[in-house]
Amino acid sequence: MSRDVGLQQLVGVDGGLIRFGPDQPLALDSGGQLKSLEIAYRTYGKLNAERSNAVLICHALTGDQHVASVNPLSGKPGWWTQVVGPGRPLDPERFFIICSNVVGGCMGTTGPSSIDPETQRAYGLSFPMITIADMVRAQVMLVDALGIETLFAVVGGSMGGMQAMQWAADYPERIYSTICIAAAARHSAQNIAFHEVGRQAIMADPNWQGGEYGPSEVRPEKGLAVARMAAHITYLSEPALQRKFGRELQGDGLSWGFDADFQVESYLRHQGTSFVDRFDANSYLYITRAVDYFDLAASRGGGVLANAFTGARHVRFCVLSFTSDWLYPTVESRSIVRALNAAGARASFVEIETDKGHDAFFLDEPVMHATLTGFLDAAALARGIK
Amino acid sequence: MSRDVGLQQLVGVDGGLIRFGPDQPLALDSGGQLKSLEIAYRTYGKLNAERSNAVLICHALTGDQHVASVNPLSGKPGWWTQVVGPGRPLDPERFFIICSNVVGGCMGTTGPSSIDPETQRAYGLSFPMITIADMVRAQVMLVDALGIETLFAVVGGSMGGMQAMQWAADYPERIYSTICIAAAARHSAQNIAFHEVGRQAIMADPNWQGGEYGPSEVRPEKGLAVARMAAHITYLSEPALQRKFGRELQGDGLSWGFDADFQVESYLRHQGTSFVDRFDANSYLYITRAVDYFDLAASRGGGVLANAFTGARHVRFCVLSFTSDWLYPTVESRSIVRALNAAGARASFVEIETDKGHDAFFLDEPVMHATLTGFLDAAALARGIK
Repeated sequence: MSRDVGLQQLVGVDGGLIRFGPDQPLALDSGGQLKSLEIAYRTYGKLNAERSNAVLICHALTGDQHVASVNPLSGKPGWWTQVVGPGRPLDPERFFIICSNVVGGCMGTTGPSSIDPETQRAYGLSFPMITIADMVRAQVMLVDALGIETLFAVVGGSMGGMQAMQWAADYPERIYSTICIAAAARHSAQNIAFHEVGRQAIMADPNWQGGEYGPSEVRPEKGLAVARMAAHITYLSEPALQRKFGRELQGDGLSWGFDADFQVESYLRHQGTSFVDRFDANSYLYITRAVDYFDLAASRGGGVLANAFTGARHVRFCVLSFTSDWLYPTVESRSIVRALNAAGARASFVEIETDKGHDAFFLDEPVMHATLTGFLDAAALARGIK
Repeated sequence: MSRDVGLQQLVGVDGGLIRFGPDQPLALDSGGQLKSLEIAYRTYGKLNAERSNAVLICHALTGDQHVASVNPLSGKPGWWTQVVGPGRPLDPERFFIICSNVVGGCMGTTGPSSIDPETQRAYGLSFPMITIADMVRAQVMLVDALGIETLFAVVGGSMGGMQAMQWAADYPERIYSTICIAAAARHSAQNIAFHEVGRQAIMADPNWQGGEYGPSEVRPEKGLAVARMAAHITYLSEPALQRKFGRELQGDGLSWGFDADFQVESYLRHQGTSFVDRFDANSYLYITRAVDYFDLAASRGGGVLANAFTGARHVRFCVLSFTSDWLYPTVESRSIVRALNAAGARASFVEIETDKGHDAFFLDEPVMHATLTGFLDAAALARGIK
């Protein structure tokens, strides 16, 4: 698809799939390149005449491009309808909102379940390792193709926040503002440990077949479900789990067996089994690895996080954390803000009181919405966006 | 083995195996009974003439009776040599120290891997469900067989602390003091959730074979290793993991693959693979379930924890917690102490400042050792033990 023709068509249909030919390979941090790249993306709203109102939303670990519209696989509403939509902080009447599936993903963008044009089989583990910076580099190709020079904002929570910071480090001249929610500038030992449990659960499943399950009908569903269950606990807080489930039973009494006696077990099993319907196990391996590898201070700052942001002094930053988030706790956001301050960048920081844990950023959190609205309104005014 | 002959022999060899015949079944909370019961135990020191110096140590989830002597399976030193030994808080020169493998375990006491005398095959999932109270009831049978009327102390950490509290609730007249370290009076929703991840990991392993892997050579090692890895993270604190491993790599650089790049991954994998050499997957299912079912207020207090301790007003309690323990955080110990106070029992409580997490109770924690020594010395003086 040529850029000019593609652009026209794709904006018209609120997104779609954009294909980059072998002459436009994606350069990778690992040293290799991805010669065949397709990016699946979704847009909401219209690019204004000045091309100044584009907002890129970066999705989290298992997210996708369906931010505010029904997910075709699950049939569920988009994952951020609380933030994107009419009357929401990111209103498509005002902003041209873009979200693309990350490279390595499984919702249309090239990833390990894609067909390798050289072999005509799914990549599996022959897919190259990717990083957060690689994801961002692919997003830059999309933004270029859409004819956008400068993004009004790059916005993301969790792994999406990591991408937003990576944009500020690698392409500061192409962004006006950055919103980083419930994220960290590097993955901690405990974070890596939880991801490793998930990967080992997948790789322990004989149906994984060394990642070569592509041609078969059998997929490592049990391993992937266990991975999701372990991860899901880290997305919630202990108090929220206690408030929501406590020791409530599914039935009238104990089963004296290994059925899901407790409601929290049933809930967790459901999280696992429903996840395998919409996610690919190899993508889970690759994307968790990309997050584990993320260490912005090491990769872009020579060990000093502030150095990663020296080009981003003009960028307006909004950093948010949640009091009960133990995956990326407030201390991680504080270190980002300190680095931004040290670099001389403009940083707003709000720690939001909630017991909902890491996943609070998906939920109806009035303080988060008010903070986002306030930050975006001020930035839009300064940028001349009506 | 008859009780009289057995007793003589067994004390002589610092423990061993005691067998209870079908005429002495173990009554179970589930309503059934275990007709054939063997208890594997270890003793240190000598029972004094007054029979007043016996201390029962209750082990944790995956612990065993080898408290202060080499574990015959792993070849490693006992798991609590920091606390039990010459010059330690529990000195065998002074106390007669007993520790038995819990019912449902896999270190000699009857459990799901034992041979069911009725079928001559391993029980597998036909083993009855057990509870913390069942474990204690088996310990009472052992203590009876050893000719001990009153225990000077029942001591335990984690699941061992739950057993110690269960003793105080069910057999207060048979104990003089109780030490409960890093435990909770009930398993929280998050605790249950982590256990459920472990169970699902085991049951997802096709080698588990519905629990009937007994006759085969193939065991669900991968599933059990994943279960252990997930659980192990909960035993450590985030700061300790960061201090110990951070983002340190195994080799000179990233592997750009799924090998254990980070030291924390290698450490965790080792925890998983070494665990399967010493533990049985079905025992893991049964014992985690027993802990999930534990709720002392509900089972013994009609919903009010203090009611569980009304018979234990004369018992001296020592409750310890660790600041960085997020598995059974201090708030859980405080609620135990509040209940003891409300019941009119004598309770000492110390929260120990450490970054070592839940597993601190196994480690060289000087404040814990000093607290235990002080508590035990005062109780021994009052009890007339020299």
